[in-house]
Amino acid sequence: MDRQQRVEACRRELANADAAAAIIFPSIDMAYLSGFTDEPMERVLFLIVPREGDPVFVAPEMYDEQIRDASWVEDIRTWGDGDDPYALVETVAAAFGFAGERILVDDRMWAQFTTELRERFPDATFGLASEAVGPLRLRKDDAELAALRAAASVADAASVAVRSLGGDAVGLTERELAARIETELTTRGGDGVSFEPIVASGPNGAKPHHRHGDREIEAGDPVVLDFGTRVDGYPSDQTRTVVFEGTPPEPFEQVHETVREALEAGVDAVEPGVTAHEVDAAARQVIEDAGYGEQFIHRTGHGLGLEVHEPPYIVEGNNQPLEPGMVFSVEPGIYLDGEFGVRIEDIVAVTDDGCERLNDSPRGWRGEGR
Amino acid sequence: MDRQQRVEACRRELANADAAAAIIFPSIDMAYLSGFTDEPMERVLFLIVPREGDPVFVAPEMYDEQIRDASWVEDIRTWGDGDDPYALVETVAAAFGFAGERILVDDRMWAQFTTELRERFPDATFGLASEAVGPLRLRKDDAELAALRAAASVADAASVAVRSLGGDAVGLTERELAARIETELTTRGGDGVSFEPIVASGPNGAKPHHRHGDREIEAGDPVVLDFGTRVDGYPSDQTRTVVFEGTPPEPFEQVHETVREALEAGVDAVEPGVTAHEVDAAARQVIEDAGYGEQFIHRTGHGLGLEVHEPPYIVEGNNQPLEPGMVFSVEPGIYLDGEFGVRIEDIVAVTDDGCERLNDSPRGWRGEGR
Repeated sequence: MDRQQRVEACRRELANADAAAAIIFPSIDMAYLSGFTDEPMERVLFLIVPREGDPVFVAPEMYDEQIRDASWVEDIRTWGDGDDPYALVETVAAAFGFAGERILVDDRMWAQFTTELRERFPDATFGLASEAVGPLRLRKDDAELAALRAAASVADAASVAVRSLGGDAVGLTERELAARIETELTTRGGDGVSFEPIVASGPNGAKPHHRHGDREIEAGDPVVLDFGTRVDGYPSDQTRTVVFEGTPPEPFEQVHETVREALEAGVDAVEPGVTAHEVDAAARQVIEDAGYGEQFIHRTGHGLGLEVHEPPYIVEGNNQPLEPGMVFSVEPGIYLDGEFGVRIEDIVAVTDDGCERLNDSPRGWRGEGR
Repeated sequence: MDRQQRVEACRRELANADAAAAIIFPSIDMAYLSGFTDEPMERVLFLIVPREGDPVFVAPEMYDEQIRDASWVEDIRTWGDGDDPYALVETVAAAFGFAGERILVDDRMWAQFTTELRERFPDATFGLASEAVGPLRLRKDDAELAALRAAASVADAASVAVRSLGGDAVGLTERELAARIETELTTRGGDGVSFEPIVASGPNGAKPHHRHGDREIEAGDPVVLDFGTRVDGYPSDQTRTVVFEGTPPEPFEQVHETVREALEAGVDAVEPGVTAHEVDAAARQVIEDAGYGEQFIHRTGHGLGLEVHEPPYIVEGNNQPLEPGMVFSVEPGIYLDGEFGVRIEDIVAVTDDGCERLNDSPRGWRGEGR
């Protein structure tokens, strides 16, 4: 689908949602639909997608040229710093007749904007744009899958390279190793990092969202390595837990083996019609059976697309059935507070009869991939 | 003020705003009040500041330790991936009795969260947390001013170093020069960049928010250099427009002189009691008198604090009177579409009887600071 087709599909979804328009804030959705986006900012920069009619940008004057360069959307209405940008939004609303209707706003629109929109459109009711855009983004098309595969391959190659440091990694700080990972990703064709790499050594590994610090990696440290890059705008995200040199503490080997089995159980459960909840349960059961249920303190996975975290969320209670084209992580972990952590993560794409695994780098714990 | 004192001041402001609580989302305000923040995320992670009583974090289980490490806030209520985080928020609301009262939400809270809060608290009315936190952040204390001065000095030193490239900059791409700028900032004690540096050469300079691209800098190119770094969490942001080598096109010299005069006029206008509008008008008048009013297509400045863009905004129609401790940019510009742009920016801090200029690097256009 090109972006114009995505907007046409979005308008059909607006009808399904009984909504008259979607107001998109600078975000992934704005890029997905228009080809243009920027960082969220305090200035009004909206893409308005009416159910009937062509989309309209309401943007600061200074963005006029950048939007024209980046987007296929032709109707760009700009405001100067002295103007009231919401007056432009009201004009558009009047033209398309959605001022008193149901309006969907970008799920990530800041409260300062939603508050003002509610004041300007007191007769409207409000919903979230994900009602209309979510269904489109959930199933990846062939071009999106190709980009996700390529990004996963770059991360796999970087993983092999970092692993091969073996004993050379001992004495590096987590921060130094994170910088090394970024270099390995970009020199292999990745576009930067898709998120701040996690290098969590020894006890830091027990904090699932520890990024990296000044701790020096020691022989025998289990080190959680969780990183990704982007190719054609699509990210990778993979985790391996390795011991670069020396003998890990007890009960690391057993914990690592349990997490590997949980990963396999989760991946094996993936096929169309199975629910996200069931995939989480399959991985979680393995860890609970091993007696570490209390130490698996996060969901099993998250969707991956233009965003590193997006639906479907592989979490208890999410009864969304999997469909071909959905892409998500399976990343069980066990975290022993004050000792170490183990997490292993692969990305999978749901196929017509099961799933395609996008990562193939070694999952064992010894440095040098043994 | 330490962070506990900031929360006490915030509670007084809540009373002034007739609000019973503020619900803060991962943001600068969260860091300002609690010492902890993270990237905005799709998980519920709120800091709840009730008008009466101690603040409470509602956070995913996996953040428990990180919050305890970073924040003075002791009441941390965590939820697991299978739980309903809003049930915890409802419990806190019941305990502090704000479920049916006026609730202020973080100005940057995503619509997906504000929408859910409105559903969970149908009897509440909603406002923005800036009503309570904004007045605190607007006037910088001595420690904040010291950090802003230090960040400005690092940017000034980097500006002098980049300028001294002279003809060596010719042939570099904008991207290469941007990377050089980042190095100059970090090697002088800056903590990274406070925003993606702008290196806008020749016609790219006419796009005020062009970041940097693959265009090679040519002799005679006017080049807009807009960058900053951070020291102790506080940013710098300065702009110079230089010609590294050769003769710039007509009417560059006159345009540059006009922008310099506009900068001086804006800075001269700054003193307590003067409005933001009047500072904008003083700078704008110089450019209008020179016949370039239509080519000065943005506001004159923005506040600078924990955020690179924050109040006070130096813009037409903002009748907020300046007060000692306010810090903001004065950055007039003239943009000749398809030809070049000129912008010159300094940061000023309002004092009891005028202002302190935080930048002192050369403002002329010739390379090597001549």
